[in-house]
Amino acid sequence: MNTSLIILAAGKGTRMNSELPKVLHPIAGDAMLIHAMAAGASLDPTHTVVVAGHGAEAVTKAAQDYDETAIVAVQTEQLGTAHAVDQAKEALQGFDGTAIVLYGDTPFVSPETLEDMMSAAEGADVVVLGFQAADPGRYGRLIMDGMSLERIVEYKDASEAERAVTLCNSGVIACKSDLLFDLISQVGNDNASGEYYLTDIIGLARARGLKATAVTCPEAETLGVNSRAQLAEAEAAFQARTRAKLMEDGVTFQGPETVYFARDTVIGRDTLIEPHVVFGPGVTVESGAHIRAFSHLEGCHVSRGATVGPYARLRPGTELQENTRIGNFVEIKNATVAEGAKVNHLSYIGDAFVGTKANIGAGTITCNYDGVMKHHTHIGANAFIGSNTMLVAPVQVGDGAMTGSGSVITSDVEPDALALARAPQVEKPGMARKLMDLLKAKKAKQQRSS
Amino acid sequence: MNTSLIILAAGKGTRMNSELPKVLHPIAGDAMLIHAMAAGASLDPTHTVVVAGHGAEAVTKAAQDYDETAIVAVQTEQLGTAHAVDQAKEALQGFDGTAIVLYGDTPFVSPETLEDMMSAAEGADVVVLGFQAADPGRYGRLIMDGMSLERIVEYKDASEAERAVTLCNSGVIACKSDLLFDLISQVGNDNASGEYYLTDIIGLARARGLKATAVTCPEAETLGVNSRAQLAEAEAAFQARTRAKLMEDGVTFQGPETVYFARDTVIGRDTLIEPHVVFGPGVTVESGAHIRAFSHLEGCHVSRGATVGPYARLRPGTELQENTRIGNFVEIKNATVAEGAKVNHLSYIGDAFVGTKANIGAGTITCNYDGVMKHHTHIGANAFIGSNTMLVAPVQVGDGAMTGSGSVITSDVEPDALALARAPQVEKPGMARKLMDLLKAKKAKQQRSS
Amino acid sequence: MNTSLIILAAGKGTRMNSELPKVLHPIAGDAMLIHAMAAGASLDPTHTVVVAGHGAEAVTKAAQDYDETAIVAVQTEQLGTAHAVDQAKEALQGFDGTAIVLYGDTPFVSPETLEDMMSAAEGADVVVLGFQAADPGRYGRLIMDGMSLERIVEYKDASEAERAVTLCNSGVIACKSDLLFDLISQVGNDNASGEYYLTDIIGLARARGLKATAVTCPEAETLGVNSRAQLAEAEAAFQARTRAKLMEDGVTFQGPETVYFARDTVIGRDTLIEPHVVFGPGVTVESGAHIRAFSHLEGCHVSRGATVGPYARLRPGTELQENTRIGNFVEIKNATVAEGAKVNHLSYIGDAFVGTKANIGAGTITCNYDGVMKHHTHIGANAFIGSNTMLVAPVQVGDGAMTGSGSVITSDVEPDALALARAPQVEKPGMARKLMDLLKAKKAKQQRSS
Repeated sequence: MNTSLIILAAGKGTRMNSELPKVLHPIAGDAMLIHAMAAGASLDPTHTVVVAGHGAEAVTKAAQDYDETAIVAVQTEQLGTAHAVDQAKEALQGFDGTAIVLYGDTPFVSPETLEDMMSAAEGADVVVLGFQAADPGRYGRLIMDGMSLERIVEYKDASEAERAVTLCNSGVIACKSDLLFDLISQVGNDNASGEYYLTDIIGLARARGLKATAVTCPEAETLGVNSRAQLAEAEAAFQARTRAKLMEDGVTFQGPETVYFARDTVIGRDTLIEPHVVFGPGVTVESGAHIRAFSHLEGCHVSRGATVGPYARLRPGTELQENTRIGNFVEIKNATVAEGAKVNHLSYIGDAFVGTKANIGAGTITCNYDGVMKHHTHIGANAFIGSNTMLVAPVQVGDGAMTGSGSVITSDVEPDALALARAPQVEKPGMARKLMDLLKAKKAKQQRSS
Repeated sequence: MNTSLIILAAGKGTRMNSELPKVLHPIAGDAMLIHAMAAGASLDPTHTVVVAGHGAEAVTKAAQDYDETAIVAVQTEQLGTAHAVDQAKEALQGFDGTAIVLYGDTPFVSPETLEDMMSAAEGADVVVLGFQAADPGRYGRLIMDGMSLERIVEYKDASEAERAVTLCNSGVIACKSDLLFDLISQVGNDNASGEYYLTDIIGLARARGLKATAVTCPEAETLGVNSRAQLAEAEAAFQARTRAKLMEDGVTFQGPETVYFARDTVIGRDTLIEPHVVFGPGVTVESGAHIRAFSHLEGCHVSRGATVGPYARLRPGTELQENTRIGNFVEIKNATVAEGAKVNHLSYIGDAFVGTKANIGAGTITCNYDGVMKHHTHIGANAFIGSNTMLVAPVQVGDGAMTGSGSVITSDVEPDALALARAPQVEKPGMARKLMDLLKAKKAKQQRSS
Repeated sequence: MNTSLIILAAGKGTRMNSELPKVLHPIAGDAMLIHAMAAGASLDPTHTVVVAGHGAEAVTKAAQDYDETAIVAVQTEQLGTAHAVDQAKEALQGFDGTAIVLYGDTPFVSPETLEDMMSAAEGADVVVLGFQAADPGRYGRLIMDGMSLERIVEYKDASEAERAVTLCNSGVIACKSDLLFDLISQVGNDNASGEYYLTDIIGLARARGLKATAVTCPEAETLGVNSRAQLAEAEAAFQARTRAKLMEDGVTFQGPETVYFARDTVIGRDTLIEPHVVFGPGVTVESGAHIRAFSHLEGCHVSRGATVGPYARLRPGTELQENTRIGNFVEIKNATVAEGAKVNHLSYIGDAFVGTKANIGAGTITCNYDGVMKHHTHIGANAFIGSNTMLVAPVQVGDGAMTGSGSVITSDVEPDALALARAPQVEKPGMARKLMDLLKAKKAKQQRSS
């Protein structure tokens, strides 16, 4: 079925106490808005309309960074959810499929739930997403008659019997696009807050003799975020679910509660992940890799049998081939480390290729930045880079070549050659003792005179 | 009103199983005693008397490091709380205001609670701090008659009706100083443990027809520490409160439970703090900064727009100006990093000034210690320090100057100049292969002969 | 009494979703099997028979790495627990003591519990280990008559009254070795799953008029692991117990829940451990040491008064003597750091000796690997190693000697001598500005042409 998304993302989120628009606050490394867009994207929508308001410019950028085809409709005044949806009308002119209304601050509605709604929309004019609330509190209640949704009643207007209902309204709605905007045009704002409520379309549809129904999902999917504490709770829920899922999939953790994942992290079976590891966006770790403690990974690919860390930082563009070894206090950025190569200690490898079985000594730095531009370093297969070698890019070290410890390599090194750039060692007998005595005397003098 | 503090800090804390006096065990980076002193300091007391006993020397040092005007009275024998307070008598001779008795192992009594006690002391002779206990257990009970505190009854002496009372005694007391010592002089030790109990002064005051009353505070404020497990619980309570407070104030956390704060940490609004961050004492982070994972901050100031970490260590005396960038495996100590400057990788910057928009290459080290004294390094605005530059202090690099990778800079560099200290690169064709063959042959020989 | 162990370790552990045999999944850094073997080892057994099946080769290696005298019996088909135990028959031929049957996936049975079983075995023919289950669920029940174990009844066969029994069967059994195999020979497989059950020996023993009894242990000891989630729970239980035990023993933690221990970690009294620390196998920390945040320790010994971290990595073979100081981004491997020596910043010290009170400058690297072999570095007492010194091993720096910053030291340095290997500093006035202008022009040109 033809689907379009309308994602409401105009709210300020006063309780967030922030300059950042509410929907841009991050969970698992991505703005909440992106979580909602990603769930909706699974329906392969023809249009994705984001209704922005507070911080519309930033919201537009975030939405279009994620999906360049996203259309942004700006709601200049916040007059209620029906009014917000109405801003998408122009963008959906001529669209004759089903529109689903999602919320940028309700990040966890699942693709499966959206599929359920689309299926239900084949047999009903309006579909509302409900959930069985553990504590229904002041949520609106869905009043059903069998499969038919009779009405949505607000808590304050509900009878005692209605308040006993635990099926609550999430606000997510699916409806034929034309019908949706037609119903919205009839919604009034004659209520205490003077707002146009989207839920009113159910009553209007029923009054026309149209069919409404509800689909339910786990309460956890409808979790909304209104404060930083709730943001932290949503993050915790996301992380707990991810850890549980990964353990089922065959990942071992020593301290799962100390490992953080991004929305899109992929980890293979029989991977061992030690405590205190952070995965930023865009990471894939293949089966049988070992991610050691205190590692930080973003935008990288780790192949089978690779060992990372402890204290390894893999930045975007890092590709670790099989059986590579990245050790402590090592940063890799925009670089491929080929099969069996090792970068074990205190190094920075950026904008580089490290050949098969090459060994990169401690303290090696690819000097990739000249103050204006970045340049590339190529290290050949089986090369042996001595400790504390500076590789001043652009530069190539041939296969099987060596560099001496402490060398600054500014010219290419031929395969199998040894390159050195080193001053001869000079020894001054007794000089250390003299120097120390001198320095101590100087210090004593300074102390006396102060 | 004139106030003085008497802080009881003489206990050994046998259950702590430690050589360290109990009140010196740390919570949030400061001795428990300091938490009590800091709360009391909000009353702007005329005298602060710390009653020390076990480890009196260390307790004295800690107290006076925090407040050099603190008076220490030593209780040589531990004969009970009344006896402990009595040690402060001499120090408060001639003081005609109100004394508040606090406890060095009860770190969370709040300034607001102490203000409440001082207000109550205006209308009563003795004010006791009570709390509604969730589980009153074996605490002493405060028996009230309206606003009047009739008596404090120990659990073992309490009737069934009295045991049903949930208002419990925290031990914190406010009383006119003269009266306090006068009442204490009447306290006896005719009880099972042979100790002089401070709580006995309520009965003595009432017997004289004086007015006693109680002020209540949340139970969490009266939490006392008797073992390392309780110390860990107190720490956890402190951290949980701090995280919640900061979220309310507009700070975002991905994993709040993995971030640790000191007693005095200040974090601005719209700061993003990633998981696994530790704040030691003396840190201020301004709005809009970004503290990345695995960072460790102590005694430093981070300005707006600065990005710190991952794996950045800021030590005392670090001042990061706006939009600075401190990257991974970087240590900064006693240094100012001016606006827009970057120290991105694997560097040590100590006792230094880094100028506006300067760029410090990977592996740069300020060699600030000559074995005897520390020296200063000055790096000018827009300077470009090549990777692995050793800056042998005292040394100055002028504005806009550059240093070549791998240079040891021992003399000042003029503005806009390029300084190099580098041996020329020499290449020995085929030598890498020969060396490796030689080494492998040697190893094989060793293995055969062993 | 003469004891032998039979440890069942043949299961695949389908729910683990792993290529690794179930009993080799790690808890606290050691395979579950090793935990069971270590508990059993406390009985000083004459034989330790591990019954392997799935992944027998890997299980054999793990068992014999831990205890080279361990005998592995391979169960080629998994036909039930009685059948598994029967595989140990040949190995225990001629052994006339008591055999205890343990499980490789039940890692927490304590030495004290095993002692209790051995004591009970002096007065009974068969001893079963039971536990009072908080939620007995579908566990088999131990039906006692006073001290006599009448029978073990499976949940599905139990009467209502029997299901009300909360004393459950752990599966751990002690029995005279000869009798055990004799009873097993009578066990049949005429049941729903067609397996030979070890528990059937109780009924067989009772039928012969033999005495059976039960010993109980805390439920936590009988925790079994069938999935990665349960593995994580077992790990969490281990860590929580260890933290609580260490706090009792006088160790202070700021965030105990962020510190991870190995099975054999030893930490002395009055040690302060900051948040986010990981202890791998083989670590001993003496009293009064200070382990700072983000440190990672494996196979090392830390003496009194030493300070480690933050961000220190101690690898196997590290010996830190008293009052040493290992700072941030420092890796130490197979090295002794003598009393009072300091390695404060960004260094790699491997295969080395660092003398008393030596000071190792930032960025120092022992170049211990020549591409084929590892070599040793000796640094004398009171030596001062300048920042970024490369010590190309094998090499010796004498007592009281100094090396200049940025030197590559390839020859031994005499005591009290100063060794330098440094190119002279050259300054090119105005060149930095020219270079930058050139680079900017080049970039602008590239941008125009692209």
